Amino acid sequence: MDVHERLEIEDLYAAYVECLDDGALDGWPELFTDECLYKVIPRENYERGLPLAVMLCESKAMLRDRVEALRRTSVYAPRALRHLVSSLRVQPGAAGVIGVRANYAVLQTLVDETTQVFNAGRYIDQLVRQDGRLKFKEKLCVFDSILVPGSLIYPI
Amino acid sequence: MDVHERLEIEDLYAAYVECLDDGALDGWPELFTDECLYKVIPRENYERGLPLAVMLCESKAMLRDRVEALRRTSVYAPRALRHLVSSLRVQPGAAGVIGVRANYAVLQTLVDETTQVFNAGRYIDQLVRQDGRLKFKEKLCVFDSILVPGSLIYPI
Amino acid sequence: MDVHERLEIEDLYAAYVECLDDGALDGWPELFTDECLYKVIPRENYERGLPLAVMLCESKAMLRDRVEALRRTSVYAPRALRHLVSSLRVQPGAAGVIGVRANYAVLQTLVDETTQVFNAGRYIDQLVRQDGRLKFKEKLCVFDSILVPGSLIYPI
Repeated sequence: MDVHERLEIEDLYAAYVECLDDGALDGWPELFTDECLYKVIPRENYERGLPLAVMLCESKAMLRDRVEALRRTSVYAPRALRHLVSSLRVQPGAAGVIGVRANYAVLQTLVDETTQVFNAGRYIDQLVRQDGRLKFKEKLCVFDSILVPGSLIYPI
Repeated sequence: MDVHERLEIEDLYAAYVECLDDGALDGWPELFTDECLYKVIPRENYERGLPLAVMLCESKAMLRDRVEALRRTSVYAPRALRHLVSSLRVQPGAAGVIGVRANYAVLQTLVDETTQVFNAGRYIDQLVRQDGRLKFKEKLCVFDSILVPGSLIYPI
Repeated sequence: MDVHERLEIEDLYAAYVECLDDGALDGWPELFTDECLYKVIPRENYERGLPLAVMLCESKAMLRDRVEALRRTSVYAPRALRHLVSSLRVQPGAAGVIGVRANYAVLQTLVDETTQVFNAGRYIDQLVRQDGRLKFKEKLCVFDSILVPGSLIYPI
């Protein structure tokens, strides 16, 4: 096991969460490779091999578009999102691709309300090294509910 | 501190969670030694030294039986369980036994319902090396509620 | 990256959580330097630069006072608190000060009730080495809600 690479992987996940939760959304697409796949998909669809995704971006440019769209959204009630990520499992694969799975929960706090679990599931990811840094080449967010949360407009 | 052993411990916990949450239940008993103790116990009983446990397995064979029983259960509503595990504290002990405590929460998503916190508490564990791999020799899941969740049939 | 220091940082956070959740409150102030700042503050105040904090201790002596006060409190319903901490980001700074941010959630279990998310947010911390051990020189707990939880008397 390469200890430094392992900690670098943990850092990538922490940077991902920091971008989404602490308001640095611009940094979020930069954690992906130019060609990439980002998908938020209900567990049932994932397990049955159904392609339908709740959110789908197929390049870094599309991730940036999404961030721009979020900036311009004004009908969306203010809220704080907070990720909890744990149980990372790292599986080095062929051709420099590193597979990682992890559990996540996203907590949501609406103004004047208490904090609730908004979404939970697992990440099924592929990492590669680009320009000396580990990046997401593929990130699947497979969430546990069948219900699609109506307000799922922020990345998971 | 042995860095490789530390990461190996984290891997064991991640493998444990992966078996339980991603549907690979058969792998779960294999993370324990042949002679082992697995116990799910309310906090109050643990602190008062009362033996009553909600779930108790005293060997790997009993853990395997439990997995078999879960397979055959049909009266149980489908649900997804998702563990969050954090704050591992490692305390090397005598005779090759490694003590580990950690916090856990298990989130539950029932069909057509939102995700809820199902159970939370701490793991109080003893690890030993067997056949070159770290395994659970003892695992206590001490949960915070006094109420015993009626649907506690899956391992915690 | 200094791997040993990194694991030492993770240990400090695990020790912090263990003190608060497993009933070893006396150990909690000892994880801070003598001169220190501990502050629990709503996200909005933090982001607007408003000083108002829900809990404020400006020295280890004040932290110890708080522990003493908690001991004497009898009007407070018994409950179990359980921290989940993840996504630590470490940023070594000047003069031996290490910056760390992390996400946290505190789950609460009242007697005869199910476990709920009590408080969630992020830690924004400064660590220094004192007497050979890493300690908190500053710890801000910036929570996501605007509502101040009425029962926030335990450290976060």
